[in-house]
Amino acid sequence: MQTPNQMITLLISCPDQPGIVAAVSQFIFEHGGNIFQSDQHSTDLHNGTFFMRVSFTEDSFRLGQPDLTSKFAPIAEAFHMHWSVYYSRHRKRAALLVSKLDHCLTDLLWRWSSGELAMDISCILSNHPDLEPIALRYHIPFYHFPIQKDHRLADQMRMLEFLCGKVDFLVLARYMQILAPCLVNAYPHQIINIHHSFLPAFIGANPYQKAFERGVKIIGATAHYITENLDEGPIIAQDVIHCNHRDTLDDLIRKGRDVERRVLAEAVRLHTEERVLVYQNKTIVF
Amino acid sequence: MQTPNQMITLLISCPDQPGIVAAVSQFIFEHGGNIFQSDQHSTDLHNGTFFMRVSFTEDSFRLGQPDLTSKFAPIAEAFHMHWSVYYSRHRKRAALLVSKLDHCLTDLLWRWSSGELAMDISCILSNHPDLEPIALRYHIPFYHFPIQKDHRLADQMRMLEFLCGKVDFLVLARYMQILAPCLVNAYPHQIINIHHSFLPAFIGANPYQKAFERGVKIIGATAHYITENLDEGPIIAQDVIHCNHRDTLDDLIRKGRDVERRVLAEAVRLHTEERVLVYQNKTIVF
Amino acid sequence: MQTPNQMITLLISCPDQPGIVAAVSQFIFEHGGNIFQSDQHSTDLHNGTFFMRVSFTEDSFRLGQPDLTSKFAPIAEAFHMHWSVYYSRHRKRAALLVSKLDHCLTDLLWRWSSGELAMDISCILSNHPDLEPIALRYHIPFYHFPIQKDHRLADQMRMLEFLCGKVDFLVLARYMQILAPCLVNAYPHQIINIHHSFLPAFIGANPYQKAFERGVKIIGATAHYITENLDEGPIIAQDVIHCNHRDTLDDLIRKGRDVERRVLAEAVRLHTEERVLVYQNKTIVF
Amino acid sequence: MQTPNQMITLLISCPDQPGIVAAVSQFIFEHGGNIFQSDQHSTDLHNGTFFMRVSFTEDSFRLGQPDLTSKFAPIAEAFHMHWSVYYSRHRKRAALLVSKLDHCLTDLLWRWSSGELAMDISCILSNHPDLEPIALRYHIPFYHFPIQKDHRLADQMRMLEFLCGKVDFLVLARYMQILAPCLVNAYPHQIINIHHSFLPAFIGANPYQKAFERGVKIIGATAHYITENLDEGPIIAQDVIHCNHRDTLDDLIRKGRDVERRVLAEAVRLHTEERVLVYQNKTIVF
Repeated sequence: MQTPNQMITLLISCPDQPGIVAAVSQFIFEHGGNIFQSDQHSTDLHNGTFFMRVSFTEDSFRLGQPDLTSKFAPIAEAFHMHWSVYYSRHRKRAALLVSKLDHCLTDLLWRWSSGELAMDISCILSNHPDLEPIALRYHIPFYHFPIQKDHRLADQMRMLEFLCGKVDFLVLARYMQILAPCLVNAYPHQIINIHHSFLPAFIGANPYQKAFERGVKIIGATAHYITENLDEGPIIAQDVIHCNHRDTLDDLIRKGRDVERRVLAEAVRLHTEERVLVYQNKTIVF
Repeated sequence: MQTPNQMITLLISCPDQPGIVAAVSQFIFEHGGNIFQSDQHSTDLHNGTFFMRVSFTEDSFRLGQPDLTSKFAPIAEAFHMHWSVYYSRHRKRAALLVSKLDHCLTDLLWRWSSGELAMDISCILSNHPDLEPIALRYHIPFYHFPIQKDHRLADQMRMLEFLCGKVDFLVLARYMQILAPCLVNAYPHQIINIHHSFLPAFIGANPYQKAFERGVKIIGATAHYITENLDEGPIIAQDVIHCNHRDTLDDLIRKGRDVERRVLAEAVRLHTEERVLVYQNKTIVF
Repeated sequence: MQTPNQMITLLISCPDQPGIVAAVSQFIFEHGGNIFQSDQHSTDLHNGTFFMRVSFTEDSFRLGQPDLTSKFAPIAEAFHMHWSVYYSRHRKRAALLVSKLDHCLTDLLWRWSSGELAMDISCILSNHPDLEPIALRYHIPFYHFPIQKDHRLADQMRMLEFLCGKVDFLVLARYMQILAPCLVNAYPHQIINIHHSFLPAFIGANPYQKAFERGVKIIGATAHYITENLDEGPIIAQDVIHCNHRDTLDDLIRKGRDVERRVLAEAVRLHTEERVLVYQNKTIVF
Repeated sequence: MQTPNQMITLLISCPDQPGIVAAVSQFIFEHGGNIFQSDQHSTDLHNGTFFMRVSFTEDSFRLGQPDLTSKFAPIAEAFHMHWSVYYSRHRKRAALLVSKLDHCLTDLLWRWSSGELAMDISCILSNHPDLEPIALRYHIPFYHFPIQKDHRLADQMRMLEFLCGKVDFLVLARYMQILAPCLVNAYPHQIINIHHSFLPAFIGANPYQKAFERGVKIIGATAHYITENLDEGPIIAQDVIHCNHRDTLDDLIRKGRDVERRVLAEAVRLHTEERVLVYQNKTIVF
């Protein structure tokens, strides 16, 4: 893949009103930016919330980050914006959390090494030592953080301290542990989980077993941000695969692995490219 | 489509043991039947339940229905079979139950008229008079059976009496009424419903509204047999369609109609061709 | 479905350069328009062609159509734009062309009557009289224009004269006739055809037969604009369905009908909502 | 995954006539086999060709391989069968052929190591040395067989000699070389190739480039057996993914890799489980 141009991306949300697009695009134009992609969405035509993602070339843009911030402030204020700015040359730093299953980890690492995922992987954390060899293969630091039932909270606090300042977001690649609220709240909408069912079907443990027992004709996977409510966070991506009466539980697990891999990878790609905005526990994916 | 040969179809279930296929196929062969399709399934390799659907040409088969029944009885007994026999020239008779929404009805009638569905449609019943013109278009008797909240049971009993002896199975083409147990039990695994969600997600009323609020990225539809437990009967067919943040509730409803239509039609087709066996609240679809 | 607000939609293409979005959105803002949807695309980051579709509320917009045209002209000129403007209350007028197969026609008419397709259907033309009853059902004028091998061109010229001034675009709903260049050129990128294969596979006649013989595991359908080169016009929409060795040619035709119906309907919907721009024999679908 | 029972699988084809299933299943029953899966297919109801795949437990079957062969011979002769027998404990031996692209190889090796593919991988051959580290990771012998334009035939003959007796089938995991007829004919219907398009669309080189230029809305991948006619061998599996005007050529390649990986893996799985029969350049997949 050719090296892409360095981009600046603005993410904006504010009460909808006329003139927002005009003001933002005028600002970018005045300072030399060439808009590469621009997407917007209003939740409602009247009194809705407005969302915008606009990315433009950095090389031709005449403002450095501090100037961009100070000069965009009046516009942001006028429209009561929540906004943030990202530079594609500052790659997000990820921690991957895994347990014993290797399919999502292996897939993410391969995609990352082949250039599909524009992020740095700071470390891989696991409550089991099993997957360390895979981490080594890609020269990524692997840390074993055992989680024990009777002091789970303390164990997770240790992880949180360790991660502090090191990473921008977490990917739970079949981590199989429920995160303590302190961890969840430390990374709001920055923890991506893959749930091995088509949410909201089969919330909780053993979704393939439940799908098998229910006799569904399709199984799925869901990538979502972790919130304090288990499996109820904003959904980023979902996909499915057909199944039938011939499929044993093992077949469902095998087929499901394929869906999990690609749904999680897609969510991570969207997240690293700043394409996901959260609103009222739902996502806008630009 | 060319006129297909007339077929005899045997549906069999019994405890699994060696020799079943041999015995059944030997029986068909001995009496001149030419097997057209044969499918089998065991729920487990050891001590499982065995299911078989075998269809063979009627014209070359030398036994009439009474002789078939009496001569097959010893085999059935030896293997402790539940079994039934169907002749393709005896088309199943359906009653379609509808409310006000016309998309499933229109689609079923078009498919039926174009030869996709090998059934007779005895009548269309509705709790509203709105769709009568569509029934007339295809010269199918339409009956208005109002259902009133305060004597729902009596109203449905009247429907049941009316249907008695007239039809072999019911299709709820967005009928929007919960059936009374007496009706459900009168047609065990003979009432096909289309639920406008990907079950078991969004059980009950207003699934599109719930899907919209949850922010799912895929919506679906499920055709299943009605049992006493609402939306929990054996699933016959399911399918999905992708959606995103741009889709309004109206868009979900529009997209969903497409999925509902084809999932219900597929289930009806499978049912009329005797391709669906029920086992432990799941279906085997041959 | 609720009555949507009346919208004005601008379609724009021009050489890419900074400032286009700013200028267009500033223009809309200045005159009171509230942008509902805005999409843009550049074919290339440098020296590419820029495409934009922006729709905004008509009721709050203070310019009538002549004023919009005259006041937007300087902007259009400055950026060397090709542009056009559409008012949602001026519904496009369609002619549907059919032969003997009714599945696409029946489906389009049902969708149209249920409000999915924002167009007027001026007339239905056919080279056979068979489908007139379906047209009557929806009170749409039906005209029989026989096409005879030895004066096909003259026959089609007569159709062209008849259509002149009556319709904005044509939908070939399995019309099964090759259009003469005079007809094609009279409606550039305004004639939508459904080809019953996944183009560019199985160009030309009998694609299901060819798919059956080739032993493909998926069949598809393609909606495209008609150009002078048969089956090679810009593709608007495509979809597929899985098949296997059990499927006879009749099964492929049956399954294919489902795909044809929804792909054609989707293309017509996109076209009527002015969501399709053509560039270098490809489409940009906003 | 639990260790499956050892199975014996019979693959049979013969002119269709009544009594085949009865004879085969009677034979298995008589000698103690418990049928696990049985599939059959007739190409036509009258004068067609009949295909059967039946697998049964080895442990309860009372005939060893020589006895099975000699005792089944009279049945085979009576029905003019082509037939073959496979024992699941004799895993097929594969050679994987690769060039420089690693996505299919990485995926196949991961699936193989996780137990999805019941085969032995004897060796990995490549015309480039690049992927040797991946082979080493899984402790599989890697051999560099350069192919040079001016003595391609001799180069491939060397490969053929090397492979002789070592492997049962070949997998071209994006091998990017056209095989000489001598190689193709040495492994009839035993060489699986992945073509990175939805065949028969975009036969030959650079299908993604061609798909990009044609402006298709779906791209696909096809796994097929290699025959002497390039990209025209029997198709085993196909799948697709949607794309749109936003997708650059690089995006198509990225999306396509996902489809290629899973289509090739599926074809290899089906082949190793003896589920694919070839008939008239098409496949029957049981």
